[in-house]
Amino acid sequence: MSIAGNVGLTDLPRICPLISRRVQPSVDAEETRVVVVGEVQFGGVRPVVIAGPCAVESLEQTLAVARAVKAAGAEMLRGGAFKPRTSPHDFQGLGLQGLRILAEARRETGLPIVTEVMDPRLVETVSEYADMLQIGSRNMQNYPLLIEAGKSGKPVLLKRGMAASLCEWLGAAEYIAKEGNLDIVLCERGLKAFPAGEYSRNVLDLSVIPAVKGETFLPVIVDPSHATGVASMVESASCAAIASGSHGLIIEVACIDEGAARPKCDAAQAISPETLSNIVRFIDTHIERTAMRKAHAV
Amino acid sequence: MSIAGNVGLTDLPRICPLISRRVQPSVDAEETRVVVVGEVQFGGVRPVVIAGPCAVESLEQTLAVARAVKAAGAEMLRGGAFKPRTSPHDFQGLGLQGLRILAEARRETGLPIVTEVMDPRLVETVSEYADMLQIGSRNMQNYPLLIEAGKSGKPVLLKRGMAASLCEWLGAAEYIAKEGNLDIVLCERGLKAFPAGEYSRNVLDLSVIPAVKGETFLPVIVDPSHATGVASMVESASCAAIASGSHGLIIEVACIDEGAARPKCDAAQAISPETLSNIVRFIDTHIERTAMRKAHAV
Amino acid sequence: MSIAGNVGLTDLPRICPLISRRVQPSVDAEETRVVVVGEVQFGGVRPVVIAGPCAVESLEQTLAVARAVKAAGAEMLRGGAFKPRTSPHDFQGLGLQGLRILAEARRETGLPIVTEVMDPRLVETVSEYADMLQIGSRNMQNYPLLIEAGKSGKPVLLKRGMAASLCEWLGAAEYIAKEGNLDIVLCERGLKAFPAGEYSRNVLDLSVIPAVKGETFLPVIVDPSHATGVASMVESASCAAIASGSHGLIIEVACIDEGAARPKCDAAQAISPETLSNIVRFIDTHIERTAMRKAHAV
Amino acid sequence: MSIAGNVGLTDLPRICPLISRRVQPSVDAEETRVVVVGEVQFGGVRPVVIAGPCAVESLEQTLAVARAVKAAGAEMLRGGAFKPRTSPHDFQGLGLQGLRILAEARRETGLPIVTEVMDPRLVETVSEYADMLQIGSRNMQNYPLLIEAGKSGKPVLLKRGMAASLCEWLGAAEYIAKEGNLDIVLCERGLKAFPAGEYSRNVLDLSVIPAVKGETFLPVIVDPSHATGVASMVESASCAAIASGSHGLIIEVACIDEGAARPKCDAAQAISPETLSNIVRFIDTHIERTAMRKAHAV
Repeated sequence: MSIAGNVGLTDLPRICPLISRRVQPSVDAEETRVVVVGEVQFGGVRPVVIAGPCAVESLEQTLAVARAVKAAGAEMLRGGAFKPRTSPHDFQGLGLQGLRILAEARRETGLPIVTEVMDPRLVETVSEYADMLQIGSRNMQNYPLLIEAGKSGKPVLLKRGMAASLCEWLGAAEYIAKEGNLDIVLCERGLKAFPAGEYSRNVLDLSVIPAVKGETFLPVIVDPSHATGVASMVESASCAAIASGSHGLIIEVACIDEGAARPKCDAAQAISPETLSNIVRFIDTHIERTAMRKAHAV
Repeated sequence: MSIAGNVGLTDLPRICPLISRRVQPSVDAEETRVVVVGEVQFGGVRPVVIAGPCAVESLEQTLAVARAVKAAGAEMLRGGAFKPRTSPHDFQGLGLQGLRILAEARRETGLPIVTEVMDPRLVETVSEYADMLQIGSRNMQNYPLLIEAGKSGKPVLLKRGMAASLCEWLGAAEYIAKEGNLDIVLCERGLKAFPAGEYSRNVLDLSVIPAVKGETFLPVIVDPSHATGVASMVESASCAAIASGSHGLIIEVACIDEGAARPKCDAAQAISPETLSNIVRFIDTHIERTAMRKAHAV
Repeated sequence: MSIAGNVGLTDLPRICPLISRRVQPSVDAEETRVVVVGEVQFGGVRPVVIAGPCAVESLEQTLAVARAVKAAGAEMLRGGAFKPRTSPHDFQGLGLQGLRILAEARRETGLPIVTEVMDPRLVETVSEYADMLQIGSRNMQNYPLLIEAGKSGKPVLLKRGMAASLCEWLGAAEYIAKEGNLDIVLCERGLKAFPAGEYSRNVLDLSVIPAVKGETFLPVIVDPSHATGVASMVESASCAAIASGSHGLIIEVACIDEGAARPKCDAAQAISPETLSNIVRFIDTHIERTAMRKAHAV
Repeated sequence: MSIAGNVGLTDLPRICPLISRRVQPSVDAEETRVVVVGEVQFGGVRPVVIAGPCAVESLEQTLAVARAVKAAGAEMLRGGAFKPRTSPHDFQGLGLQGLRILAEARRETGLPIVTEVMDPRLVETVSEYADMLQIGSRNMQNYPLLIEAGKSGKPVLLKRGMAASLCEWLGAAEYIAKEGNLDIVLCERGLKAFPAGEYSRNVLDLSVIPAVKGETFLPVIVDPSHATGVASMVESASCAAIASGSHGLIIEVACIDEGAARPKCDAAQAISPETLSNIVRFIDTHIERTAMRKAHAV
């Protein structure tokens, strides 16, 4: 019996020859392609921490969070100007104004910006402001969007779809690569699976980290915020991701201690800058330990 | 403990007020809104059968299949001109030429056409040829595309995402409705779930049919081809869908008995015109029985 | 890369040679082994309807439901004397007293009885009262229990585990067969999958029906009550199961119109005897139609 | 609409009052109940490493692995004498002889033993040899077995079912607790979920670790071997588990470098003693770091 659409890891050389480790012999078996965004390096020695608000809501809020995450050790700023929301009646993001606010936050803090683009017609505009384009989970197989992102020449953060196989995910990355753009960072963010929703939003699939590394030379990071959906779980999920070999984290942070308004979306998963500091310290000691272990092995 | 993004059926009046049965009191509890495409009525007494090739590959192939499915009792023609494929190196569809072939098949057979659109920039072009726009599973939450489809004024077939909750699916439909377009037909096509891939491509979730009917007045149909991915399972899945109360079916058919080439995509799930005839006959007797039962009840 | 425990349909001849259609050449490709319980035949022309209360709660309740389901057309009585409950503090069933009540209901109505056994030490006792032993989903891979059920010589109803692959399910049946007992009826009852719990308890996987028939000659039925968990969905799920080729149904029924107490477990999924009558009528016309179609084909 | 069987975290005080943190006010919010097995403490400062062969196959093999895992830093020995296998024709374990071999390995190495029991009639026998009883995933809801394990007075390792919700898992633990036995250690071992089987056996759900800690005072460990099913993924999964706050690990190890035979089951997921050493070193530095952080915080 044959099943339509059934593919497996052995099909990857055909599905994504441009990014398959098995097809590209010039890339060393251990090596990760380093994707550079400003002074940030994905796939280098140190895992990258991206942090920021879920949505850009105002200049004040964005600057406050940007300063706080920089102080906590983040190297890059996230924030949504265009928000994919379950209902069209929910807050959809500030759009162009949000991009301008992000640019202002970059000017202030020096942190490069990653922000989501959902519409192929807006890739050019978003590229004018952002240092890195984010393709969200809902759009992982939005191929016209992936092609425009590829053409933009900007580094792309490609989130895994909520029920995407590894083959589908790497196939999506190949759409970007086919336009001549290999500056792709993959991002695991949790699967929809039973019993997600009982105690966490999704099920974080950390086994995909070594699986990705086995199949492609592209760096891969983790979004613990959407994976868990619960602020109190973000620190343990972040540490687990780093221990799994993730090349970085993208984390939602809110500053709510100063009488600020509650975030307009996903408030339940935003952590405080203090918790972010803990995560950065975990990374610090993780790197030291890895370095010591390598020195010991030599 | 609060989980970000957790919503349930009780949130539907807020998520999708325009299509929620609970919010729209003028729509009778039992009634389905009839969506008209040419002479075809979704949500009327008779379930609608849409059939045709997976992809439009040539005029000859398309005409052959179109004639065959019409003879077998289908009322509407499907066929992909723009194909979302896992790999960018796979056949992507004939594009504009494919649309012209579909229009020619309509001229020949009189069958109205539904075809997928993936790019908001192409909604206008596809609308010139198609009688109904299909939004595929991968694009269920491609909101810019949904908005353009809403603006087009064309009837829209909105497939359920492969891991979409009912709330997310109806939320997506609301994006179309918000543009003033209530001519929406929902389409269940199977979930990604364990152990899908062992004997079928996905898990067909027929319980969602009565659930949809309880929450909205929009008609809902089933795609047994993608749900099973196995040609030999399509007939039983089709009959089960009709028995579940589905307002129709969209089925992939291939004519491979005349020395024709094997379809370029999803060949394993395409049924023959003869099997399609069996399905249409099942619908005939199903309607008779339902009519008799209603007469008996009076 | 090799994954421990990964098996597929091609492993079935090794996993379950005694019940594999591919290994047992004497069984015709189309034929189902008929499992006889009293005058009831699973795998014959007519799908079997088993109905009754979730749990046996009292003689009065059980007799009332037994009479009602017989009047509605059921051929066999179900009812739990030993109940597997999520909490040890919940009602665990009447035990031996429940078995005696079931036997009394059989004496009164003539309906053979199927009831669950959870403990290998109780297989002998339950076998004294029951006409068929039920192995529940939670115990699908309780191998000592399966072996005792095999040794009992009683027909066995083997429910599919909530996340069992087809290979695991048929492997479990093989444990019974290995004890010399081929009187096994399989029962699909819904998978745990996202987004189960939003509108239904589980996801009913009807594609497994043709898949089972392709791999083994054992009959297979469906439990629409546990699959949906919602009384208003049971009729449509039952009809879908029959249309999918199911050899029968096992349905929970409650008589709550006469001032009776609400059932102690799973009340939300129990249907009325009237709804059961509708399902039986659907089966009547389904058989007529199938018979006509076969006559027409000759 | 009401769905039968739907429970959530708010039902836990009713489902499992004996082990619920919310019901037992005497247990401090931060504290874990320490479960003692010989000199091993689950829930103490140091995560416990249990290691050993999948199945006990011979005295030589078991001793070799036992010595190797002890040398690598494991504190406790695992090994199956009774093996739940998908097919009854596969190796079922050495049974009583296996228990004797385990006892001999304990005598030699001083490592306490945990081994699986599947049959309530064998709990007494297994308890004579084992220091801790393991209830496997397939038997998580085998309530007669849980009750006997509770009565045995032995510490119990309760694995999570492959599709069990947190409520079902803690409900199962409550069956043991109800018999007066609170020496329960929970063990997460991966969920069956899409796309498990593509690159890993199951999906390891580490978010359940903080969720368990929020709801009960029982310690919780992780089985990275069954969770991944791939030897090359076990180290990263182990480190992730420890970083998530797991109280320990249970790992399958094989000694295959000395011309030994390939293990009879699950060979693809067994790691070498060298890899186990790496994992133990990760734990060492993890504890140091945690200790430093606590000192810093004071």
